Amino acid sequence: MSSISLKDILEANERIKGSIKRTPVLNNDYINKLIDKKVYFKCENFQETGSFKSRGALNAVRKSIEKNGNCQGFITHSSGNHGTALSWAAMMENKKCIVVVPENAPSEKKKMIERYNAEIILCKSTMKDRERCCEDIKNISGYKMIDPHNEYDVMAGQGSIGIEIDEEVPNCDAVLVAVGGGGLVSGVATYFKESNKSVKIYCVEVIGKNLQESVDAKERLWDEDCQLLDTIADGIRVIKVGDKCFSPLLKYCEKEILTVTDDEIKNAMTMIYEELKIVIEPTGAVTLAALLKYKDTVLKDLKNVSLIVCGGNISTSDIANIFK
Amino acid sequence: MSSISLKDILEANERIKGSIKRTPVLNNDYINKLIDKKVYFKCENFQETGSFKSRGALNAVRKSIEKNGNCQGFITHSSGNHGTALSWAAMMENKKCIVVVPENAPSEKKKMIERYNAEIILCKSTMKDRERCCEDIKNISGYKMIDPHNEYDVMAGQGSIGIEIDEEVPNCDAVLVAVGGGGLVSGVATYFKESNKSVKIYCVEVIGKNLQESVDAKERLWDEDCQLLDTIADGIRVIKVGDKCFSPLLKYCEKEILTVTDDEIKNAMTMIYEELKIVIEPTGAVTLAALLKYKDTVLKDLKNVSLIVCGGNISTSDIANIFK
Repeated sequence: MSSISLKDILEANERIKGSIKRTPVLNNDYINKLIDKKVYFKCENFQETGSFKSRGALNAVRKSIEKNGNCQGFITHSSGNHGTALSWAAMMENKKCIVVVPENAPSEKKKMIERYNAEIILCKSTMKDRERCCEDIKNISGYKMIDPHNEYDVMAGQGSIGIEIDEEVPNCDAVLVAVGGGGLVSGVATYFKESNKSVKIYCVEVIGKNLQESVDAKERLWDEDCQLLDTIADGIRVIKVGDKCFSPLLKYCEKEILTVTDDEIKNAMTMIYEELKIVIEPTGAVTLAALLKYKDTVLKDLKNVSLIVCGGNISTSDIANIFK
Repeated sequence: MSSISLKDILEANERIKGSIKRTPVLNNDYINKLIDKKVYFKCENFQETGSFKSRGALNAVRKSIEKNGNCQGFITHSSGNHGTALSWAAMMENKKCIVVVPENAPSEKKKMIERYNAEIILCKSTMKDRERCCEDIKNISGYKMIDPHNEYDVMAGQGSIGIEIDEEVPNCDAVLVAVGGGGLVSGVATYFKESNKSVKIYCVEVIGKNLQESVDAKERLWDEDCQLLDTIADGIRVIKVGDKCFSPLLKYCEKEILTVTDDEIKNAMTMIYEELKIVIEPTGAVTLAALLKYKDTVLKDLKNVSLIVCGGNISTSDIANIFK
């Protein structure tokens, strides 16, 4: 398989749909009027474990078990939503789960992983040590590694959001998606384009990622050992789009990349908290930040725009730090 | 009419239901497990204008117009949710609205009132000046005064929440309601008891209100000129229950009053933000605070409990102040 197909996404949807939540699509008169478009917020902050990651994790876990009923457990490295999601997905199937977590990860993140009965193994905070530690434990335990994004079954699971948007947003012109490793955008874009919908998919990045360069060059230009982005949008700190995610992104997404700053994300967060009355993590406001910034330029001709609000995992002390 | 009846509430519901939102009833596995009950959150933070007050205001506005088609406008004194709700309700009916606002009210509150085209008149911050100013303008303008709670049509409108809880919560054993002036609790209690449901209605107060004393004495023992409560729950700072609200409260609510502190409210807010992922104002967490405090004592035998989450109007800077 050189990438995922519509069929993979439809199958993933069938595989997970009884266990994940059908998250609400919210809209708001004040925001519609301000932006002069109909804006549909697909609220994955209300998803199981608080982010869309549960979709891909559960699809990957269930498909692994279909292929190999003897599979004992799952492993990943993550200090964030994917770690929690994989813990939950493994628990749903009565399988064990180990999450390799950098030693400096916030205690709330560890608490969430433990809530779903996964085991935490601490490692140093470099990406290299995370991967090495994960590889070692995989070899000892025989558990299956599930990458946060660069993994076809994960990408296909995330694509199920596209199906729900398609069913719930009338005459959708475009979907805006925040891009970290690219698992979400590749799944959603593949769904819409391979089902021949005339819906534009826009990638939104945090400044510093330089996704535009790689898209223009049609190849992944990031350094092998590039660092994480310094941004409040902790769900998309990873700079590099995964190689498996890059080709559908290139094939199916709009060529203009939308870029936002932390201040723009904070403003969008304020609007979502005060108008929609929902709690989101900073990454969940990235798409609204882009819409507010580009509404009269790149996105001018669009009437009905869907924004994926990707997650809501944030402690009240972190909320206070952002809005102080 | 010596009080409101079930009929008034059913009529109010018909009068407003096309214009107000059917707010969601949320629940959460983690909270259910922690409390060892099924907990149903009736989320009026998602209501029009961000609180349940829109129900009572719209009922009062529409009923006034039914009675007197020449009615030119409406007036109230409020620095909070009722002022915003009445502005919205008047705008819905193309009527004018004046809101008398204490000069020290936060600017966000004024912004919300202005969003619905109401006129703001500033007064001094004492209750006496608010009432005097309101009376003066009423006499000059001929506008109809709509009290925030001590007004039958407002109470009947708030009671419509009871109908929705009744339809959506299976085998509901009890409803917890935060009490300020008493408009909400009197409407909800009247609905359940006059429709012969075996649902207990519990009043929740902030410490200092001493509602228990008045309930035990079967009369309103508050001083004529008592001050506002000093609490973060700004929606229920008014100490005295209105005289029109007190008799249904006494007749239909449980005799044990549940009392919470600001620290307990903050803890409950944190749980609602982090687990339910919804933005509420402090008053919206008062009922969960009471459930957490009394779950093993007064509320021990209840299995299915509904909590009214009364509103979500809070600025991100106030959120930061609370959680810092």
